[in-house]
Amino acid sequence: MKNIARILIDCKDAKGLVYQVSKVFFERSLNIDSNQEFVDKQVSKFFMRSVVSGDFEVSELESAIQEILPENAHLRVIAPEKKKIILLVTKESHALGDILIRHSAGELDANIQAVIGNHKTLEQLVKRFDIPFHHIPAEGMDRQTHEKNVMAVINQYHFDFLVLAKYMRILTQNFVDNYAQKIINIHHSFLPAFIGANPYKQAFERGVKIIGATAHFVTSDLDEGPIIAQNIIPVNHRFDWKDMQRAGRDVEKAVLSRALSLVLNDRVFIHGNKTIVF
Amino acid sequence: MKNIARILIDCKDAKGLVYQVSKVFFERSLNIDSNQEFVDKQVSKFFMRSVVSGDFEVSELESAIQEILPENAHLRVIAPEKKKIILLVTKESHALGDILIRHSAGELDANIQAVIGNHKTLEQLVKRFDIPFHHIPAEGMDRQTHEKNVMAVINQYHFDFLVLAKYMRILTQNFVDNYAQKIINIHHSFLPAFIGANPYKQAFERGVKIIGATAHFVTSDLDEGPIIAQNIIPVNHRFDWKDMQRAGRDVEKAVLSRALSLVLNDRVFIHGNKTIVF
Amino acid sequence: MKNIARILIDCKDAKGLVYQVSKVFFERSLNIDSNQEFVDKQVSKFFMRSVVSGDFEVSELESAIQEILPENAHLRVIAPEKKKIILLVTKESHALGDILIRHSAGELDANIQAVIGNHKTLEQLVKRFDIPFHHIPAEGMDRQTHEKNVMAVINQYHFDFLVLAKYMRILTQNFVDNYAQKIINIHHSFLPAFIGANPYKQAFERGVKIIGATAHFVTSDLDEGPIIAQNIIPVNHRFDWKDMQRAGRDVEKAVLSRALSLVLNDRVFIHGNKTIVF
Amino acid sequence: MKNIARILIDCKDAKGLVYQVSKVFFERSLNIDSNQEFVDKQVSKFFMRSVVSGDFEVSELESAIQEILPENAHLRVIAPEKKKIILLVTKESHALGDILIRHSAGELDANIQAVIGNHKTLEQLVKRFDIPFHHIPAEGMDRQTHEKNVMAVINQYHFDFLVLAKYMRILTQNFVDNYAQKIINIHHSFLPAFIGANPYKQAFERGVKIIGATAHFVTSDLDEGPIIAQNIIPVNHRFDWKDMQRAGRDVEKAVLSRALSLVLNDRVFIHGNKTIVF
Repeated sequence: MKNIARILIDCKDAKGLVYQVSKVFFERSLNIDSNQEFVDKQVSKFFMRSVVSGDFEVSELESAIQEILPENAHLRVIAPEKKKIILLVTKESHALGDILIRHSAGELDANIQAVIGNHKTLEQLVKRFDIPFHHIPAEGMDRQTHEKNVMAVINQYHFDFLVLAKYMRILTQNFVDNYAQKIINIHHSFLPAFIGANPYKQAFERGVKIIGATAHFVTSDLDEGPIIAQNIIPVNHRFDWKDMQRAGRDVEKAVLSRALSLVLNDRVFIHGNKTIVF
Repeated sequence: MKNIARILIDCKDAKGLVYQVSKVFFERSLNIDSNQEFVDKQVSKFFMRSVVSGDFEVSELESAIQEILPENAHLRVIAPEKKKIILLVTKESHALGDILIRHSAGELDANIQAVIGNHKTLEQLVKRFDIPFHHIPAEGMDRQTHEKNVMAVINQYHFDFLVLAKYMRILTQNFVDNYAQKIINIHHSFLPAFIGANPYKQAFERGVKIIGATAHFVTSDLDEGPIIAQNIIPVNHRFDWKDMQRAGRDVEKAVLSRALSLVLNDRVFIHGNKTIVF
Repeated sequence: MKNIARILIDCKDAKGLVYQVSKVFFERSLNIDSNQEFVDKQVSKFFMRSVVSGDFEVSELESAIQEILPENAHLRVIAPEKKKIILLVTKESHALGDILIRHSAGELDANIQAVIGNHKTLEQLVKRFDIPFHHIPAEGMDRQTHEKNVMAVINQYHFDFLVLAKYMRILTQNFVDNYAQKIINIHHSFLPAFIGANPYKQAFERGVKIIGATAHFVTSDLDEGPIIAQNIIPVNHRFDWKDMQRAGRDVEKAVLSRALSLVLNDRVFIHGNKTIVF
Repeated sequence: MKNIARILIDCKDAKGLVYQVSKVFFERSLNIDSNQEFVDKQVSKFFMRSVVSGDFEVSELESAIQEILPENAHLRVIAPEKKKIILLVTKESHALGDILIRHSAGELDANIQAVIGNHKTLEQLVKRFDIPFHHIPAEGMDRQTHEKNVMAVINQYHFDFLVLAKYMRILTQNFVDNYAQKIINIHHSFLPAFIGANPYKQAFERGVKIIGATAHFVTSDLDEGPIIAQNIIPVNHRFDWKDMQRAGRDVEKAVLSRALSLVLNDRVFIHGNKTIVF
């Protein structure tokens, strides 16, 4: 019975944690395929991600590790399987399209359960890939009602993460709380610059020489959630804000794909308003 | 009499400007060594930078061009000579050091007239390069008095630009107005993110994955002046704010040097709160 | 009759070319929307790209410009229309997929006429987008016969460019000569490093810290054609060559899309073994 | 007795190495300040770098670790002290200057023992910083004689690394063998592109859109030694090779400083023709 597991630990720091955990691995003759640790000394918190392989039973391994960890430790022993995701979109196709192509090539470490759009614009593209598309219009109703309709669809599926692939709606606190640490967004600026609406217009007005994109977990503070990945491209005075938007799309989709790859491979710890990325 | 000149024009846009200007060049048999134009269509403004060489007299060329330009045009005909600069510093040596080394190798298109420091820390470094250092302490006096003392030193010299090479003092409106469009600053963040004090601490607290630096002209709005150049480097959760500061220094000095090179070669137009960089 | 045209000129350098060309524009009251020039002084060659708009007739404008240019000048007056392209692929979907998504969103300045594959692998993906796919197998025949079959398909279509979107076959001199200056390839290395087969394996063996991709026009010298665009990403000792390949895909597709956008907008001059990119 | 040490291990891979090493740390109540491992599975080789602090005796710790490692393991227990370096230069000041400035600011984790130049050009700059400069001319003698003279100077000093800061001479096998794994060079291209003389001219001739620099250990194969760090900057058709050289200098000095920082902090393992960089 050859098994593989990702072990993710976050807990209060203590002497001997690496020793204790690696002892559990050693006693079971496990191979450590990769191993990374980090201690946040300011708050004395320990993070560890190991990938182990060998002949083990998941629940037994989990108990053995749990036993040697300090109280209130957060332990996850995860089989390296494809996650399930639901995409939320509006009208722009670049982030969605990139994910669909990766999915169709088997390069995305996730199965797309469904795509939900507040407009019909992207329905045809999604259907080309034989993936369910749900059009949940937002016109003529309040935010709560629309979100209730969206949640009704979401709750038809099993999923690990909701991916906002250029979903241009602000979420309520209630929605965010419902899916805490499960919503990933791509923001079209180098956060914290240009929070809020139309970042490219803001960037153009400010005359920046670089624009960027930020993938982050969504919390109830708009654009303030833990950052997973960021990247940038240079622009110049010849770019009006539409040009910036066009150029920015390539960064947006690359950053979102990078962040997804990290999250789907269980490489990301949320740590307060930050992330640890192994 | 073989001459070279940089011609910089900004004026209201009009049909035929390139034709009219190139006609002036052609009639004088000048070579166009390089030529760049930009029209800001939003505000209908024309920018042009040409480098011409040939047998001409500067004042005659200047009048000939002025004549064909629209009213209120701003024309500069500049000989490609080394500019004169004064550096203002505090305690950090990296930006200053980079400029001193370039200067000493003859690679800076400027002569450093003097360095002014509000601390004595960098005096020895400056003196190694046989450049005057003026220590103008700020302790125990109000901002106005200190600036009066700084200006007294500045006014002993001829200069084209004041370069704030990590000068950690906020300037008064009066000081800035005195040297309008002549003060270049390096800010240790990717503006407009992390305006104000200790940007690296702010960046650390926010958990960004990229830090940057911004060189800009100084206006009376703190950190809001026209941006000349920006660049970034990636960071991760292993960087505390001191590490970010250390890593950031290399970007700061590179961005400041890049901006200086552009400004000293007359490649930068200030256009409202933005720059046109040819 | 409001027209737009891209004017591309390459010719022997001579005094007054900018003046003469802008005079033609001025006399017809054309607006210059953008204008760029470059002189290669080594070989005394002049390049110019202007976008003009106004009330003109293409053929009249073309003759007027041709008249003032030196002998043997190469002039193109091009309407800003979508180009026609044919894609050649093998098994990898990332470069193709990126182009299909852009095409489907109307963001590609080209219409895809057809996709030709030497394997069937990508047929389904192409058909999802209602684009003709031609499977032209190469097994069991010599290179000439296979290319004859490919050319038979190509010649069914009108096209401006052949795009090798990870087409893993070496082309004969005859094929290349047939479509001179019309074939664009994406090579999966930072050329001229790692010419030839399996560049990622070569890069891995060499222990580089950066990998890249290069889009270039294809000439009969393998991997030696004029470079249009290049980009890179950092790697480290944790990357085996498969990881490099995976990471490299994102650069490949980004570089190819960038190069396509430049070529399709008539921004690229071929100049010996180099390109001028405006 | 609070101590700090960097522990560097490379050895044949075996089960339980992390466990065994962390047990040694745990039994001595040491803090693990940082910890990184890597296994090269192709050749079954294990690399580990730990920084530990606590109350220990270096030789006792060393023996304890050595005992649990496989045969032929390479173990280093290193106090985090400033290394000693000797710089070799020719005429260009940018790489040297950057190191001098860092040294003078206390930011270089090394003491510069001396600078050796085959020309006198940089003598004055070095002397500004009160560092010994040795002019060892190469004219009118064969390579062996010149190197003998250089080695005579080198051998007057204790040193950990020889840094070729744009030393434009090819070294003999004998010289390289004498200082195996101790010579760090900055090559002015993105290796393995443009090996050999005048890489910028080669890059210009090839029409690349990106140029780079590579810091590497020197082996007897010219430009083929293990790469420590690389970086690049974009160029375009407006750059002649002198412009590329000018622009390249900033990359060269940044890459060399980055590589030095890694090496001086004992973060680099040489592994065949590659490096592991923690």
